[in-house]
Order: sequence, then structure tokens, then C-alpha cells
Amino acid sequence: SDVKKIAVISGDGIGPEVVAEAEKVLKRTEELFGYTFETSHALFGGIAIDQKGTPLPEETLEVCQNADAVLLGAVGGPQWDNNPKELRPETGLLGIRKALGLFSNLRPAVVFDCLKDASTLKPEVLEGTDLMVVRELTGGIYFGDKLRRQGEHGEEAVDTCVYNVTEVERIVRQAFEIAQKRKKRLASVDKANVLETSRLWREVVNRVAPDYPDVEVEHVLVDNCAMQLLRRPASFDVIVTENMFGDILSDEAAMLTGSIGMLSSASLGEGSFGLYEPVHGSAPDIAGQGAANPIATILSVALMFRMTFGYEDAADAIEKAVAKVLDEGHRTSDIAVDKSQAISTSAMGDLIVKNM
Amino acid sequence: SDVKKIAVISGDGIGPEVVAEAEKVLKRTEELFGYTFETSHALFGGIAIDQKGTPLPEETLEVCQNADAVLLGAVGGPQWDNNPKELRPETGLLGIRKALGLFSNLRPAVVFDCLKDASTLKPEVLEGTDLMVVRELTGGIYFGDKLRRQGEHGEEAVDTCVYNVTEVERIVRQAFEIAQKRKKRLASVDKANVLETSRLWREVVNRVAPDYPDVEVEHVLVDNCAMQLLRRPASFDVIVTENMFGDILSDEAAMLTGSIGMLSSASLGEGSFGLYEPVHGSAPDIAGQGAANPIATILSVALMFRMTFGYEDAADAIEKAVAKVLDEGHRTSDIAVDKSQAISTSAMGDLIVKNM
Ligand SMILES: CC(C)[C@H](C(=O)O)[C@@H](O)C(=O)O
Ligand SMILES: CC(C)[C@H](C(=O)O)[C@@H](O)C(=O)O
Repeated sequence: SDVKKIAVISGDGIGPEVVAEAEKVLKRTEELFGYTFETSHALFGGIAIDQKGTPLPEETLEVCQNADAVLLGAVGGPQWDNNPKELRPETGLLGIRKALGLFSNLRPAVVFDCLKDASTLKPEVLEGTDLMVVRELTGGIYFGDKLRRQGEHGEEAVDTCVYNVTEVERIVRQAFEIAQKRKKRLASVDKANVLETSRLWREVVNRVAPDYPDVEVEHVLVDNCAMQLLRRPASFDVIVTENMFGDILSDEAAMLTGSIGMLSSASLGEGSFGLYEPVHGSAPDIAGQGAANPIATILSVALMFRMTFGYEDAADAIEKAVAKVLDEGHRTSDIAVDKSQAISTSAMGDLIVKNM
Repeated sequence: SDVKKIAVISGDGIGPEVVAEAEKVLKRTEELFGYTFETSHALFGGIAIDQKGTPLPEETLEVCQNADAVLLGAVGGPQWDNNPKELRPETGLLGIRKALGLFSNLRPAVVFDCLKDASTLKPEVLEGTDLMVVRELTGGIYFGDKLRRQGEHGEEAVDTCVYNVTEVERIVRQAFEIAQKRKKRLASVDKANVLETSRLWREVVNRVAPDYPDVEVEHVLVDNCAMQLLRRPASFDVIVTENMFGDILSDEAAMLTGSIGMLSSASLGEGSFGLYEPVHGSAPDIAGQGAANPIATILSVALMFRMTFGYEDAADAIEKAVAKVLDEGHRTSDIAVDKSQAISTSAMGDLIVKNM
């Protein structure tokens, strides 16, 4: 059938507020474009720990597995930070990525014109910055064996970073394909002068590169990449890297745009299934006040339409509506210069819906 | 005796040029302050590969082990980049750190007034930035077991990250002590929501913190730290972290100051022994042209005087001379606004010597 099933996970903090606005957008899309969505809500993260005793309940996983895509608000908060590992929201996040086979995390870092002053970088440095970090999401040191043991010099801890050729090749090929649809430049980031996993990574990149002759590849060491992102952000197009480096570099890249409250992300597996979420966190300090900015979550819906459903028309409509509302000067308080003029989460959502 | 033995390693690229200027400073210090230095030159890095077939010849290690401190220029260059591992300059660098027990790398990131416009950050964000990254240098994923093997999904590579309590405690205590002499703030950076080594790290920090009640400690996740360095660099004082994270964050921190060509670093072990080197690399593109900036290397000598020899007077004299020469408007081409007015490497060295 043409009914698209969306698992909706509101999560913690401002999650429920921003997701509610995204759901208005889903509803308006049905009216405007004749698409049909079936949404199922599921508990995840801190709220699931409180209500079900685990961050990733079995039924939540089932809801996701039965869906075509997942929309996630945000998870986490200080009240769960000192919990044992199995009772922490992050453990749910790692669990859902692995269980759903979401091996690729796409984090576009773009500069919104109206927010370019919010960046701590000089505007002339930022000019033209539009990059995408493609982060491997289900391998590396995140998922390798971990242990504690007594060693010669007291207690010791071990983390293991493992990558196989298959894992590297699928994410690298995906990054090449994404680069082909963009500015055709790929920076593969590793630490090949120190790590064996990085040397394997680099070999795979070099082996598959000839299959994408139109893409210009460079290998960048991770420490150098952390510098170059600051020095010449606009010179990057697609950056592909392993899980841990991607965690660090995608946050650095997002922050330098100054637009972190507006950025969406996609986590993809084989096929068209994907999990979509804003880059920002659960912001417990402003939760429940109607002050959160729903734009990143709404743009995550647009990303879902484009990447999972192929609904380019609806994705365009959302993105244009967001641009229009911002052009007209409407701002939630996080992006308002004059905070007294700021509008609420739901007012922002309504305006975007009205302009679709 | 009161003769201080200094192992001098010029290395590759611009290394010999900048080290030559630092040696002028050593000589002038003898004249002005009556100290006596005995320098021994040793081959290391690319030049050692070419002349001795190994990046870290046995005799170089001996020269260093017999010295009170090591002054290093820079190593590496494209001609060795595709060599097998044991014939690469970086392998020498890792080897010398381990062999000399240099478990701590101190990277001060300060903004030179005359260079604040060179930063890509807005001046108002940079204002007051003066931080120090304390990086663990002989443990973690850099030195853990590495291997290749055939796995279920093709060839795989493994890196192991190991830390024991003793290793963590010595670097953490050192960072606390450094913070006590500075602004009394310590940010311990880890990824405790994912890594077992980070959980051990955090436990050690929490256990020793009460011994330094005057220091305010915060735990910062590495991805968040990469963001906060951009957002609020001036709010950091001392950052302590493990080897891999320190590699990335210290380069990010150095770059955001805009003063990377002027920054010095120290690698320390037990006792007063230390290896001192500029943060910048070997810059093969400008090697041999007399265009390199010797200031970072000269300031590394000042750092050596302060940290290894306790020669505060001489360290002050060097730092003041550098400040004066810069105040007078003298610039090498890397930091000159008007490149046609730039002076040479040796002219800069001579001016600093003259002003000591
Ligand atoms: C919460 C944490 C486990 C997670 C990660 O490191 O992957 C987060 O930082 C992210 O980037 O999604
Ligand atoms: C050359 C390389 C092995 C080295 C490191 O990663 O430690 C360098 O980046 C550094 O920071 O000194």
C-alpha cells in the first residue's frame, strides 16, 4: 500500500514539543500532497527508563522495525546521567542503531543566512560553507569488546576498535555516491599514521575510488581535519570517517556553522529505511516552556521525505516554508536577536505549516 | 655539575632553520646569565631514515637519554609518507616518546595580540583565550595491540585502547597541579557514555579531585568539548585528556588561536626531563628558503628553561624579547600582513637575540 509507516519517538526534554510540531507538518503534507502516513508512538530513552525500566523497550524496537522510517526528538537528561550503563538513554541510542542496522549517519552542516552572525567564526571564513559529514555508526570503538581487569599496574580498562572491509566499503561507497550528487569532493578522515583500522580504511578508499572517477578524494588525518574545519570550512564537501572521529568532527562542523539549532540528521541502513532526528540535544533547561526551536525536527521530516520516501515535492515545500518564515523575521528565542520578540515552539510550527 | 646537556634534533623540512635560531638564543643565554649548555646534535625522523635506515637510531636515543632536555625542530615530509611503517618519521616520534617515558604533552594555546586577526574566530570570542591542553602521550589506542586478521566479513583490523589506573592518575595529578598554578579550572575530557577506558579515567579524576580542593573540575564529553572550544574558548583553563582525544583537541585549540606558528609544546616524563618542540610541522613547502618563523622554537627554549632547568630569568628574557620584536612590527612572512616587508628566519632570530 502507499501508506507510509512512521515510528514517532518523542523522547526526553524538548523532544515531545518539537516532535509535536513535526507531526503538524506530517498532517499538512497529507492534506496538500495526498500522501498517507500512519504514525505509531513509542517510548525511548529516559522516559522509557522511567516507565519501562529500560531505555529501549522491546515493543519500541518492534514499532521501529515495522515502520518505514523513524522520527526521533531527543533523548537524555541529567536525572539519568549517573545511572548504571544499562539504564542510560545513550545505551538505548547505541542499541537502536545496532538493532536497526543504521550504519551511516549523515550530518549536513550548512549555514542559514539569518544565523550566520550566530557563528563564532568570521562571516568571510564561513561564506559558502555547506558540508556533509558521513559517519560510520555501528562499528569501531563504540561496539568493540570492552573490559575491566587487574593488570600489572592496578586496575585497567580496555576498549577495542574493530573494522572489517565490508563495513568500511559500504559506508565509503555511500559517501562517494553522496559526493557525486554534490560538489564531487570527498575527504576521507583517518589516523593512518597510527591506527591499523585507519590503514584498512584508507586501503578500502583507495581501492574503490576508481569506481567514482568524477569524485576528487583526499585523505586527511583526523587532527589536521579538526584544524582545517576551522581554517577553511567552505573547502569541504563530503567528509567520510569512522564512528569515533565522526562523533567529534560532526559536532565541530555543526557548531562552526552557528546554526546548530537548525540542523537535521539521518541515520541510514541498507535499503530506504532511516531514522531522522535534529542534531541538537534534549535541552532539559528549557523543556516544557514552549521555547524550543522546532525547525531542526521539521527539517528532519523533509530529509525523511527526500531520502526514505522520495517525496521531493513535499520536502521542497517544507524547506521553502521554513526559509520563508525565517525571511519574514520570525524567530524562536534561541535564534532571536531581540528575545522579547521571540515566538513559541507551536507558533513557529503553525507558521511553517501555514506557509507550506 | 651545572652544565646542562641539551640534545638538539633539527629534523626535517624547516626544522634545521628554526633550530639554528634557537641555538643562537642558547648561546646568548650563556653570555647573559652565565649558564652553561652542552649541546649534542642527533639525527631523527626523515633525515635519519635516509642516512641511517631508521627514524630513531640507537645513538640518537642514547644522546637523548644522556641529556637533561631535548630540543626538537620538526619531522616528516611527503617523501617518506608512503614508506612502510618502520621507515616513517611518525614511527620515530612514537618511539622516542615511549623510550623516554614522555607521558605528558603540554600544549599551551594562547593568542598573540599581534596575531589575533589571523584567527578565523571573531576577536570578541577569542578575547582572553589562554588554555593548556594536557595530553596523555604514551598510552591509549596509540600504543595498544594492533592487528590484521581474516574475519567472518573479510579482512579486519583491530586497534586496542588500554589505560591503567597508574597511567591515568599520574597525568591527571599533573594536570591538577598545573591548574593550581593557573586559573584553577580543570576540564577532564572523555567519552564516558561509551568507552570503558573513559569510565576508568573519570573514576580516577573523581577520586583524586578532593586532593586539589582549590581546583574546579568539570567532566566534558569529547564531542561536546570539540564544540565548546569553538563556542567559548576563553572559558577553558586546563584541559586534560587521553592520547587520541588530546591529539585532536590540541590541534583544534591551537588552530583557533590563529597563532599556530608561534606555539611551543613540552613533552614531560617523571622528573624534570623534557622534550620541547614547536607545535607547527616541518612545512616542506617553504624549507630551505629562510622564510620559516623561528619564534615557536625559540619559545620552546623558554619553556625548557622554565620547566626543566628552572631558569625563570632567562625564560623571561626570551619571552620579553619576542614580545618586543613583535611590538616593533617585525614579522616573518607567515605572520606578515604585508609580505613584502617580511624578514628572514635568521633576521628574526638575530633580532630576538639582540633584544634579550
Ligand atoms: C549520546 C552518544 C552515545 C552519541 C554518540 O556518541 O554517538 C551522541 O554523541 C551522538 O553523536 O549521537
Ligand atoms: C605524527 C603523529 C603520530 C603525532 C601524533 O598523533 O601524536 C602528531 O600528530 C602529534 O600530535 O604530535
